[in-house]
Amino acid sequence: MHADGDVIDTDAVIVGAGPVGLFQVFELGLLEIKAHVVDSLAQPGGQCVELYADKPIYDIPAVPVCTGRQLTDSLLQQIKPFGAGFHLGQEVTELQRQDDGRFFVATDKGTRFITKTVFIAGGVGSFQPRLLKLDGIKAFRERQLFYRLPELASFAGEQIVIVGGGDEALEAAVQLANTQAKSVVMVHRRDVFSAAPATVAKVQALRDAGSLQFIAGQVSAFEAQGDRLTQLTVSGGYTQTLPVDRLLVFLGLSPRLGPIANWGLRLDRKHVVVDTEKFETNVPGIFAVGDIATYPGKRKLIVSGFHEATLAAFGASPHVFPDKPVLLQYTTTSPRLHKALGVASPVFD
Amino acid sequence: MHADGDVIDTDAVIVGAGPVGLFQVFELGLLEIKAHVVDSLAQPGGQCVELYADKPIYDIPAVPVCTGRQLTDSLLQQIKPFGAGFHLGQEVTELQRQDDGRFFVATDKGTRFITKTVFIAGGVGSFQPRLLKLDGIKAFRERQLFYRLPELASFAGEQIVIVGGGDEALEAAVQLANTQAKSVVMVHRRDVFSAAPATVAKVQALRDAGSLQFIAGQVSAFEAQGDRLTQLTVSGGYTQTLPVDRLLVFLGLSPRLGPIANWGLRLDRKHVVVDTEKFETNVPGIFAVGDIATYPGKRKLIVSGFHEATLAAFGASPHVFPDKPVLLQYTTTSPRLHKALGVASPVFD
Repeated sequence: MHADGDVIDTDAVIVGAGPVGLFQVFELGLLEIKAHVVDSLAQPGGQCVELYADKPIYDIPAVPVCTGRQLTDSLLQQIKPFGAGFHLGQEVTELQRQDDGRFFVATDKGTRFITKTVFIAGGVGSFQPRLLKLDGIKAFRERQLFYRLPELASFAGEQIVIVGGGDEALEAAVQLANTQAKSVVMVHRRDVFSAAPATVAKVQALRDAGSLQFIAGQVSAFEAQGDRLTQLTVSGGYTQTLPVDRLLVFLGLSPRLGPIANWGLRLDRKHVVVDTEKFETNVPGIFAVGDIATYPGKRKLIVSGFHEATLAAFGASPHVFPDKPVLLQYTTTSPRLHKALGVASPVFD
Repeated sequence: MHADGDVIDTDAVIVGAGPVGLFQVFELGLLEIKAHVVDSLAQPGGQCVELYADKPIYDIPAVPVCTGRQLTDSLLQQIKPFGAGFHLGQEVTELQRQDDGRFFVATDKGTRFITKTVFIAGGVGSFQPRLLKLDGIKAFRERQLFYRLPELASFAGEQIVIVGGGDEALEAAVQLANTQAKSVVMVHRRDVFSAAPATVAKVQALRDAGSLQFIAGQVSAFEAQGDRLTQLTVSGGYTQTLPVDRLLVFLGLSPRLGPIANWGLRLDRKHVVVDTEKFETNVPGIFAVGDIATYPGKRKLIVSGFHEATLAAFGASPHVFPDKPVLLQYTTTSPRLHKALGVASPVFD
């Protein structure tokens, strides 16, 4: 199934690099458990950076206010002593228990691990583009329908339709209006954009110059000739049809449980069921922490994820060090923890 | 039993002003539950200020390093919007459920509350002076035996013995050696002190000048005439006897469960048993959080106390607002929470 040569051998694989996944590295590190982190997003921080990068968060204990990015930066600084491996922009697609009790884990980019434990810190799942809800439209995906800007040398002569009103949609519109495209039409439910003022101004200027058209409404139907998408119907104040060669849809991101659904874990309404002692799933050695985990009383709050990651680390220790008793030591006083953290150990009487 | 006039009517009484008790104020505040805090120590911060005021703590999530005092200050800043009442330097000695289901709570300083809920965030109990372990010696307490420096105008002519080798013992020795006392003798297990270098230097100078004597050893017996303590036996390298008029003992602080033991709560080895859904005790309306609480998997870590306080607040809400559903809202996006926190509410599209 896999060549052993390029497989990463580790104590723990953490699926998810949001705040709870990052703090999982810390708590594992204090117990001398080495970890690798995988996330489908290109940078650490998860939802906190994806959705709240510059927005204030007030309920992190002892941090009266911070943005999502500041929270992430603080956690990255805190876990630095433990040198976790990061594997970003890839999704864990495969997880199998081996005969020796360890897990084989692989991502869609081909990164492979053999690990003693797995921590699912997947937030609400991996982020996927929100899809255009239109029966049959998915047949055109990756041919004429795209949920990202295709890497093309030229859009010359094309009739392009862009759906969406956020930053990504507007930036694509600005970029494409400056190409040799035959036409660029934006379709958004209303004539108000949720984007950076500078980008909105550029779009407005292109509209004024006639390089870009705007229609308020939503795509309600399409027509095809053979296997080729040819025309869209847009319903709004009134209904109109639009010729189309390429359809770009930017409706934001939506979380999806993804391959985790197939790992044999006990689920409850798309959440992974765990105990409250170790935050372990029904599969020994697989833990779930943060928003993706559920148990009686669960609240989807970062403060709870931090606690869950802490007890999960203690729960994992016997899987990694079967012969070593788990000791609770304090970072203020333990020379062992000072060594792990790379800080000086003061001498107390 | 009590006059209603001067009784404080509140939603919640929090017993303990350590980090977890302080964060309890915050989580209750977000749910619009008003709280009063009682602590036996004279300042907020609990063990963190009592034991770690200037020592680094490394395991508060998203706070790579802080001292006990900094942690306390950050939490005090965070809970400021909620205007909790603080009642420090007093111990809750009485707790009784009233006929209407609320609790009557009173302290040893006479502060009295009627409250819908009680949160025991008592750490390892209230801090009490560590006692001299000598059968029968307690008969002299507050007459000749003291665990603090008595407020006396004069110690003239007295033969004073001071037991202990920390800051408090040495500061008392320096102070008393400069009075009209007949003699001041320090007894400590070894000739090394755990105190500020400046204080140690002063003690050394007084010893060199003959104003202060030191004996390495421990008090192993005493003699009395009638109801009067007259002589101590100190065992060390060799055994000697010391005449004594006043015995001052400074052996540090030791936690004690105290009156909490008598409130009808289910205990397990001096800890209060709670569930992991609401962190409620066997008495509905009484919650326990932080180091004093126990449940399967419990670790005595501040990060866990923060989670416990969070779920306890949600658990308390139906006791305070029986007709209001408990909503989970986020501090980043909720206008209601922004109002509670006293911050501006941004407008999102």
